[in-house]
Amino acid sequence: METGMSFEAAVHAQAIELDRLALEMTADAGSGHPSTAMSLGHIVTVLMFSAMRWSPEVPDYPSSDRLVLSEGHAVPIVYAAAARLGVQIGRDPSQRRPMTIDDAMRLREADSEIDGHPNPVEGFPFFDAATGSLGQGLSVAAGIAEAARLENMDKRVFCIIGDGESREGQVAEALDYIAERGLTNVLTIFNCNEYGQTGRVSDQQSAEKLEAKLKAFGFDVTVIDGHSPAEIKDALDAFAQRSGDSSVAPMAIVAKTVKGWGSPTLQAGNWHGKPASGDTLTKVLDELNERRNELTTALGSGDAFTIEPPAQAPAPEFATGDLPSFSEAMRSRDMESTLHTGRLATRKAYGIALQQLGRVNPRVVTLDADVSNSTFAETFAKDPDLASRFFECRIGEQNMVSAAVGLSASGFIPFCSTFGKFFARAIDQIEMAIISGANIKLVGSHVGVSLAADGPSQMALPDVAWFRSLSTVKNHLGNPACYILQPADAYAAYALTGVMAEYEGACYMRTLRPDTEFLYNDDTVFNLGGFEVLNEGRDVLLCASGYMVHEANKALELLDKNGISATLVDLYSLPFDEEALLDMANANNGYIVTLEDNFGGGIGSAVADALAESGEGFTLEQMKVDRIPKSARTPDEVIQMVGLSPEDILNRCLTMLGVPV
Amino acid sequence: METGMSFEAAVHAQAIELDRLALEMTADAGSGHPSTAMSLGHIVTVLMFSAMRWSPEVPDYPSSDRLVLSEGHAVPIVYAAAARLGVQIGRDPSQRRPMTIDDAMRLREADSEIDGHPNPVEGFPFFDAATGSLGQGLSVAAGIAEAARLENMDKRVFCIIGDGESREGQVAEALDYIAERGLTNVLTIFNCNEYGQTGRVSDQQSAEKLEAKLKAFGFDVTVIDGHSPAEIKDALDAFAQRSGDSSVAPMAIVAKTVKGWGSPTLQAGNWHGKPASGDTLTKVLDELNERRNELTTALGSGDAFTIEPPAQAPAPEFATGDLPSFSEAMRSRDMESTLHTGRLATRKAYGIALQQLGRVNPRVVTLDADVSNSTFAETFAKDPDLASRFFECRIGEQNMVSAAVGLSASGFIPFCSTFGKFFARAIDQIEMAIISGANIKLVGSHVGVSLAADGPSQMALPDVAWFRSLSTVKNHLGNPACYILQPADAYAAYALTGVMAEYEGACYMRTLRPDTEFLYNDDTVFNLGGFEVLNEGRDVLLCASGYMVHEANKALELLDKNGISATLVDLYSLPFDEEALLDMANANNGYIVTLEDNFGGGIGSAVADALAESGEGFTLEQMKVDRIPKSARTPDEVIQMVGLSPEDILNRCLTMLGVPV
Repeated sequence: METGMSFEAAVHAQAIELDRLALEMTADAGSGHPSTAMSLGHIVTVLMFSAMRWSPEVPDYPSSDRLVLSEGHAVPIVYAAAARLGVQIGRDPSQRRPMTIDDAMRLREADSEIDGHPNPVEGFPFFDAATGSLGQGLSVAAGIAEAARLENMDKRVFCIIGDGESREGQVAEALDYIAERGLTNVLTIFNCNEYGQTGRVSDQQSAEKLEAKLKAFGFDVTVIDGHSPAEIKDALDAFAQRSGDSSVAPMAIVAKTVKGWGSPTLQAGNWHGKPASGDTLTKVLDELNERRNELTTALGSGDAFTIEPPAQAPAPEFATGDLPSFSEAMRSRDMESTLHTGRLATRKAYGIALQQLGRVNPRVVTLDADVSNSTFAETFAKDPDLASRFFECRIGEQNMVSAAVGLSASGFIPFCSTFGKFFARAIDQIEMAIISGANIKLVGSHVGVSLAADGPSQMALPDVAWFRSLSTVKNHLGNPACYILQPADAYAAYALTGVMAEYEGACYMRTLRPDTEFLYNDDTVFNLGGFEVLNEGRDVLLCASGYMVHEANKALELLDKNGISATLVDLYSLPFDEEALLDMANANNGYIVTLEDNFGGGIGSAVADALAESGEGFTLEQMKVDRIPKSARTPDEVIQMVGLSPEDILNRCLTMLGVPV
Repeated sequence: METGMSFEAAVHAQAIELDRLALEMTADAGSGHPSTAMSLGHIVTVLMFSAMRWSPEVPDYPSSDRLVLSEGHAVPIVYAAAARLGVQIGRDPSQRRPMTIDDAMRLREADSEIDGHPNPVEGFPFFDAATGSLGQGLSVAAGIAEAARLENMDKRVFCIIGDGESREGQVAEALDYIAERGLTNVLTIFNCNEYGQTGRVSDQQSAEKLEAKLKAFGFDVTVIDGHSPAEIKDALDAFAQRSGDSSVAPMAIVAKTVKGWGSPTLQAGNWHGKPASGDTLTKVLDELNERRNELTTALGSGDAFTIEPPAQAPAPEFATGDLPSFSEAMRSRDMESTLHTGRLATRKAYGIALQQLGRVNPRVVTLDADVSNSTFAETFAKDPDLASRFFECRIGEQNMVSAAVGLSASGFIPFCSTFGKFFARAIDQIEMAIISGANIKLVGSHVGVSLAADGPSQMALPDVAWFRSLSTVKNHLGNPACYILQPADAYAAYALTGVMAEYEGACYMRTLRPDTEFLYNDDTVFNLGGFEVLNEGRDVLLCASGYMVHEANKALELLDKNGISATLVDLYSLPFDEEALLDMANANNGYIVTLEDNFGGGIGSAVADALAESGEGFTLEQMKVDRIPKSARTPDEVIQMVGLSPEDILNRCLTMLGVPV
């Protein structure tokens, strides 16, 4: 029985227990955000002990209801509940154990699964994604909700967002997305405790303003006292009634709460992010005891909470087939004539691969940000058999990436595409995806200077450096946290799209706007970490990727005319096989020129890292974009503007090799 | 006389002229977005020919009203107006000339000032900032408006945003900011032409939804027909009446427009981003002629527009004084006792420097995202003399950076601070700031692994690689597009804050959470591109920055005990003097170890780039963060977790030098 005074009393009693534990674990850790946690004691109690249909024994059971704690710094309250419920924890899924109070007290220790912020890969599988960088959780929840709908699962997704946090623009993107997509299986809960880190939250994020905004966004809004068990339960019951009903508007709760609830001491002054210790802790705990005495008089004996288990999850039948060859795929699309032209943009080949992949792998889903006719994700979206697995995210890249994290957490393989430049909009979200161990594939089109006419505001130029930084790091599986793929032709783009789907982890592929000539065929094998030798010479090693492979190809002739025998390597993957590349360099007297259509820190630096570590006397010239480019009408004009033409390559080689010009 | 039918007719006539020119220039360029441009013909006509108080002879006159075209791809319509008005253009301010129709026809040419998207540094000073990456313009407008208010200028800022574009979360951040700050001198104009790139705009961005949202955000909203000269004029007149009045709500216009206005041909099918050419162009121009015949019958002779000139700008008296020494600054704050402790966090020294800088340089302004008590920007914010130059941006980093661009365009030197990790939220905005040639200073606190307890969601780890990529590129002034500064102690952080203010361009400084020991004194000179030699040895060169300088310092003793004489360089600047560093390396038998508390692509790769280019046989070991870290309770624990402790440094050196361990 979960109604009446005894339920009220039971929730208060449990919430106060969680508050106490949150205070003690942060005091022990010497850091954390207990006052924020205490503003959620009652809501988390009703959710985790009563409203959610889940199993502490299998916290990541596929059909379980989910909680996404967007304001990750409030996590001690969830850890407290998990400890009280004995939720399974452990880095190795086969070695999990029930969480104990002792585990909770090891918050933030170096070898503890109880990380400073939600972090599933460190051993707390109750969460689907890492949070803590604010404003991202609601998008993750939307992705989980999309996955549930795809699989016809009656699954509810609860997302708690801080009032101050709701200033992050991504929250607006997520609200628009949820409303547009009719994701009524998501419950958006704003925790309005009125205080941010430096003081009071802006009036723009007050409970009243949030209510008005949510209504304007198309939500049904319920405003509650976030410390009233009955009001919380009624709101969650109302949500349960409508969850998944496509005929109603999505629902949101604006919960008025108190930061440091139950403790006048913590409410005085700003305690954000400060644990209470020593005498203050004793005082706060005493204050909580008083609250308990007032509020739990009606506590009966028979009012233990009952957690409803999740429904049986459908058996996942993810039978995958083989990707047909690029030529077969082209023929199946009546594009054989294009094959004969001998050229096709890598972005178009990506679209064709995506469609074939979608047909052979039901786990593949795609997302795009209103540019699917440029990235060619539309090839997937317009296939009637696949359309339901395409998610149009409109011009909201941050929401797109975080929603992909939710889809990945639900077992899908999300391919996100937009202009490479616009992924710069979601760098933080990509980083959080990688911290979460998400299996996301990012495909940026129109990269580098070959975009030409639209100018620098549309060109991806520092992107290789940024993703390369992530490629230098090992993820929780011990693999590169990110692979960067730069196909130079359609065969490579097609094959590498398939390779990305096979890899469990994050990948970033760069595709080009212009058509490029075919360099490969159906038999060419492309691997993560590999490269292709396009020409074997002896005087100098040219390492290029993407568009620059073709400029280098043109330079080979010029070099030959000048008596220089050059080796050309298509360095389509970062990281790559360094040993093998150093051998190629040695076979060319240690002279290397790298060619890239982006700013520094890309393949040139990747090669420099390998050479410098070897300790041998190599000489490297990095040819790259050394100025901020501007518009020009053709790729060739921009290539010349930034000094990357075949003639420029020739001259750089002549100078390097000391050949008189 | 600007009213009545003849004004109507004159606006139609002029708008149609602009539409024609936009069509012709994009046709000639072979790319561009004429249909979007045509949805703005009337609004841009009324703004630039009538409502704005400005001077085509001096398009960047300080007190002129401003137009920020957030949907940058619509720029041909502005170029058309500029050509008709003979607006001054030219890369070199001393060599400007009036723009002609011929200039307009050179849209997107390699050597043309008429770039593909708004781009002031290429020679179109009518604009304050580069736009084209969507959703950023309104924040820039807010920054310009803040600057005008600071200088008591009666200046109106108009910002045009696309309906599809308004899905970008940053637009919500900007709306909240404008409403909270009461920036009634900004007019937000949504161009609701109902079509995005791939099709119809979401209902979430319909005129009706936008109106409701704007009201919920606290705006007074006027919905108009964006092709009705009278309705446009009335709305702009109403704005003029209230601009700058702090007692009213900010105003927004929701303009219902037609993509490809005047041309049934362009309205049929989706013409987004496609120029009309050949017979289609002829047909479209004929259709526009018909519209002109219908709409301009009342065109009189005496109804030329009159552009009201801007008010006389106040003489800028930006007298700047000298920054006192760090010791003097500490004494003036009664912090001499702290000086004697011999340690202080670099983030605290930044705050002290910021306050001193604010006192001696009236152009210095500061922005922070609700973490000023962590970044210590609060030291500036809480100084009564400086408080008016502090802008609390709440938890909205994207708006903060773009608003700083607006402040920079108005002659101020904005210092933006938040956790280094959270600048990842605004990477695209930072890139656009740099493309704009903005003079912004970014200070990221809590960087690297020494943050410890909060875990990876709060640690800046790939940030050095990303900013380094920008440091490899020259900006429009021929300087590094970005400098990265990593002070290791409080003296360095204090001095480098002053150095940043002296530099005209973008800088990123990383500050640390923990207190670090003093290494320098008031007499130490720090320069962009410099480094400091802390110990001279002969066996191995240690290059470190920030927190790792102290770990390296501890390692020196261990190395000495093992008979290894190490040189220690504090590589506090990227880029740095490569020649000088190579000399140091040669003086240490070519053995180098780099130490950084972040992912790869940072100072290690910067050194590798220099070594590999030299062609000499150096050996480099890069010690950096090679795994995704997790929480630990102390910096030392995390440092050990990622293998960067003094013992790790010793062992790496022993192995490298072949000393038996």
